[in-house]
Amino acid sequence: MSQPSLDPSRLADKYVEEVRLALATANQTPRVVGLIASDDQPSLAYAGVTKRKFTDIGIEYDLRQVERLKLESEIHRANEDPDVDGIFIYFPVFGNQQDDYLRNQVDYKKDIEAGSHFWVRKLYANDRWVDDDLNKKALLPCTPLAILKLLTELGVYNTDAARPIEGKTVTIFNRSEVIGRPLAVMMSNDGGLVYSFDVHGALAFRKAEPSEINITREEALAESDIVITGVPDTRFQKVSASEIKTGAVCVNFASIPNFEDDINTQASIYLPRVGPMTVAMCMRNTLRLYENFHHDKPS
Amino acid sequence: MSQPSLDPSRLADKYVEEVRLALATANQTPRVVGLIASDDQPSLAYAGVTKRKFTDIGIEYDLRQVERLKLESEIHRANEDPDVDGIFIYFPVFGNQQDDYLRNQVDYKKDIEAGSHFWVRKLYANDRWVDDDLNKKALLPCTPLAILKLLTELGVYNTDAARPIEGKTVTIFNRSEVIGRPLAVMMSNDGGLVYSFDVHGALAFRKAEPSEINITREEALAESDIVITGVPDTRFQKVSASEIKTGAVCVNFASIPNFEDDINTQASIYLPRVGPMTVAMCMRNTLRLYENFHHDKPS
Repeated sequence: MSQPSLDPSRLADKYVEEVRLALATANQTPRVVGLIASDDQPSLAYAGVTKRKFTDIGIEYDLRQVERLKLESEIHRANEDPDVDGIFIYFPVFGNQQDDYLRNQVDYKKDIEAGSHFWVRKLYANDRWVDDDLNKKALLPCTPLAILKLLTELGVYNTDAARPIEGKTVTIFNRSEVIGRPLAVMMSNDGGLVYSFDVHGALAFRKAEPSEINITREEALAESDIVITGVPDTRFQKVSASEIKTGAVCVNFASIPNFEDDINTQASIYLPRVGPMTVAMCMRNTLRLYENFHHDKPS
Repeated sequence: MSQPSLDPSRLADKYVEEVRLALATANQTPRVVGLIASDDQPSLAYAGVTKRKFTDIGIEYDLRQVERLKLESEIHRANEDPDVDGIFIYFPVFGNQQDDYLRNQVDYKKDIEAGSHFWVRKLYANDRWVDDDLNKKALLPCTPLAILKLLTELGVYNTDAARPIEGKTVTIFNRSEVIGRPLAVMMSNDGGLVYSFDVHGALAFRKAEPSEINITREEALAESDIVITGVPDTRFQKVSASEIKTGAVCVNFASIPNFEDDINTQASIYLPRVGPMTVAMCMRNTLRLYENFHHDKPS
């Protein structure tokens, strides 16, 4: 049994079309500023691709290449500019704590990645609204949301059930505040038992609640129906076919492969990247922010 | 020439006394909650010492030992409790990004460490007030402030000058958002040329502005009048006497020694730790927060 690797672009098309239609129907043109602090050609090429994707569906996308030491003032400038409805930053910039600081300088009303503490805190508190009248829906961080939508498209999520992955066990390698921890909370809220690993060890999540656990990587993988990796470090020991359950669903969201090439011999599904769905979720968040906060502004 | 290592406790006494006097004179008793998520005996002993220090000068100190997975909800409980005027968290807790998230869950009006983005952003923006009437002074993060006060007590800062370290060169190993970057901004604002190193390389800071620079550790150290280290990693190559200028001032704020034992043969001053002054600055911040936000509350 060897499955082909799946293309997330095709799976994202439906969501991209939904946003395009909503924007076209309402005759709205949100404006996003994309900030890239890099001279690296592949990074600039990637930024160009996202610009085209946003532009194609009717979102004005102002891509600005800036020096990294000017990025903070550029974020504040975009925050204060009433003509800007959304801000997208190409990370990593400094690759250290300063990136978290920068992420949190984005006005939450313009944070289309929903990676700032304001939105993540809402998720942890299970607070789904941004206003007291319950008219304005909260945003979800775009990469965790993208992974859930991919699993839905692949039929791994049973959308007819109250808890779509009830009884399933999940292992996630990454417990960052922007992706890994929100994802563990969301998937455990959806019924999964989630083992969340980082370099310091494992936590278990059940019904959105973390608990301490003593479990090895080997034990967690042997139990897991779904394995999700996001470790941008070549020292990470790649997950191999011999470690996973036959038929497991495998998803990698790191910028480098975290699974061995043989993973398709055991996995029922292997998704080597999620990027295109993340971009689709950013577009969806752009629409939501525009409707929540910006569409009544004077023109 | 061999200088003794200096005791920061003695240098902190003056500041501790100032806070004690201000509290006694005004007959005020702020209340601080200290949250420790550790079973480690040395950590608990240290927490006991801080409790005693706060209590000694007239600040009620409620030390609470909590599970790390309960820390977030304990922070929110203390935020919402009108009887709590200040919150102190014993870091590290998780040792990863989650610690930054937790640090930023503390209400800025109760953040006596002033390590949340609210206060650090004020520092970077050179915004010294928290109200439009300029009555309420902003807080400064307590460890960088402690280092500046230590250098003042030691006569390294010329307090008669407009820029107290004009013409001096500084090397700092640590560019965290809580200590290293704020410290580089503050010391460059005070007239120093600051080389700031982290694992990704160096930046130069002049008059609170960072710039890119190509400089090796060896070059920076050979030029520096002041060397400050804060690398809690045993893989860091300790700074040795042969690397520094004769007469340089050396300060270590890491939990482990970042200087070789021979440093006193070249340094004019060696301060192996800053902790007691940090505690003094937290007390000072407690008083300021109490005056700014809490002393008018109904009793």
